[in-house]
Amino acid sequence: MDREPKILIYSPNDTQVYADLLQAKGYTAVGSASTPEEAAERLAGTEVLLSWKFPLHLLSRPEASSVKWIQSMGAGVDDLVSLPHIPEQIVITRIVDQFGGSIAEYVFAYLLYLNQDISRIRIAQKEKKWEPFLPGFLAGKTMGVAGLGSIGKEIAKKARAFDMSVSGLSYSGKQAHLVDQHYGPDEWRAFVQELDYLVLTLPLTDETRHVINRELLLAMKSTACLVNVGRGKLVVEEDLIDVLHSGHLQAAVLDVFYEEPLLKENPLWTLPNVYVTPHISGPSIPLEVMRFFADNVKLYLKGEPLRGVVNRNSSY
Amino acid sequence: MDREPKILIYSPNDTQVYADLLQAKGYTAVGSASTPEEAAERLAGTEVLLSWKFPLHLLSRPEASSVKWIQSMGAGVDDLVSLPHIPEQIVITRIVDQFGGSIAEYVFAYLLYLNQDISRIRIAQKEKKWEPFLPGFLAGKTMGVAGLGSIGKEIAKKARAFDMSVSGLSYSGKQAHLVDQHYGPDEWRAFVQELDYLVLTLPLTDETRHVINRELLLAMKSTACLVNVGRGKLVVEEDLIDVLHSGHLQAAVLDVFYEEPLLKENPLWTLPNVYVTPHISGPSIPLEVMRFFADNVKLYLKGEPLRGVVNRNSSY
Repeated sequence: MDREPKILIYSPNDTQVYADLLQAKGYTAVGSASTPEEAAERLAGTEVLLSWKFPLHLLSRPEASSVKWIQSMGAGVDDLVSLPHIPEQIVITRIVDQFGGSIAEYVFAYLLYLNQDISRIRIAQKEKKWEPFLPGFLAGKTMGVAGLGSIGKEIAKKARAFDMSVSGLSYSGKQAHLVDQHYGPDEWRAFVQELDYLVLTLPLTDETRHVINRELLLAMKSTACLVNVGRGKLVVEEDLIDVLHSGHLQAAVLDVFYEEPLLKENPLWTLPNVYVTPHISGPSIPLEVMRFFADNVKLYLKGEPLRGVVNRNSSY
Repeated sequence: MDREPKILIYSPNDTQVYADLLQAKGYTAVGSASTPEEAAERLAGTEVLLSWKFPLHLLSRPEASSVKWIQSMGAGVDDLVSLPHIPEQIVITRIVDQFGGSIAEYVFAYLLYLNQDISRIRIAQKEKKWEPFLPGFLAGKTMGVAGLGSIGKEIAKKARAFDMSVSGLSYSGKQAHLVDQHYGPDEWRAFVQELDYLVLTLPLTDETRHVINRELLLAMKSTACLVNVGRGKLVVEEDLIDVLHSGHLQAAVLDVFYEEPLLKENPLWTLPNVYVTPHISGPSIPLEVMRFFADNVKLYLKGEPLRGVVNRNSSY
């Protein structure tokens, strides 16, 4: 290639996988770091940062002055834009259109697990008990998708294949055609009232932070189920805990939390009908991240607009 | 109504539910029976039999001479047609187009449960362990559906929504357009070779009995998964047990068996990676059975062709 930008890969793990994949594509000016100390040491001269959980405070140091572009390995970039450390001239990109299918598989896995009552079946099998019962079904129920980006879109598509009614709430309204019934940001209460399932796929922004509070949770049907695959801080966690304690809501399936890893003392671990998963619904598969990044590097070198550029004002 | 046929409802349980539903529709000449003794007592004069697990030997008795039509509460009628007890002039109908959605929900519940490794997640939660891992995904995998009736059709539809490749094998070939790749009854081996999932939805007939034997199971990928929602006797059960014992196949999800309830001493209960469910994938929900039956009674009274008439030669 004509010009090769100096690339630094930062991630607490798997950096070697990414470096190997990048070198296989012909890039040689590739460094990697897994700790803040290594990052500080290797940052000088870096033009492009492919990063996951980068120690952001380093970006205000002089050795970061060469950085022009940060590609996040994830879809959510609230951590990147929430701090004032990243100079305005640095372009931030996030992975787009890669996680929809994976996250939708996670969502439907849990909805079907609950309806078919697989935990009950597994216990019966252990005891060699043949005890038929009538499972629940998704068909005919109402799915509500909050956030209609590429993730919400995939969830809506699968909900239709399961013959569900699909409602959606979005802030831009651009994808209102994906759902039977669309609500805007001022219509949360009307939106949640009729749902059997509320799936949160929203990015975390000033508008969406803490949008799911006690009042809204209590406005949901007591038999409804909340699924959060967006960000932990979309929900007022203590409100959710109280509401679940009171017996309102059938279940909560949570892949994201205020603080991750979820603290041992958090009651969500042990509340009945809470399903805690360790932020695995939208895994950054190295091969897919690298495909996205490599395509973006080509655009970068040609001076063309990158894919997944983050708007600093809207945070996504 | 002008003419009311004498209807007898037979089922080991739930007969009162069916009787109530039928009486609510205006039928008054409705009897019910839950045991062979009750059936023998109440059969005389019966014109229409709505039945589940009816004691078939009664049909060769003189008091059964008035029976003109038997509506089964299920989709599979191999038990009804396998015995010579039912005089040829009696019309047998089965429920059609009612179970596809339910059975497909069952199938995808288990495929997603296995891919997302929910059992592992549940154990980690019990121990308050935050241990992310990369789940498996259905997208890109190959689904094979054996039997392309209303049940196979629903499974194929959902498989597409999960971005799977879909192969199908059917005996009539009439629904070959539903799948990417269609195989006929002489092509079982070619059909199963490339599959990640083989789902059996076939009826039990002379042609399909024991069609899944050791040779065919070993022709499958060792990572493949077998799902049987058709009939237990489609599979040579001891071959399946041997093959699973040998470590071939990733899992078997079985809702139907040679003998039901599954005997306590059957090794399927305890084989690792075998998921035993008590024939619940296609539940006969009274309300839906009754809707189907009531529509058929109207056709019967008008002398029009009934829905779901069983061909005695093909057994479905």
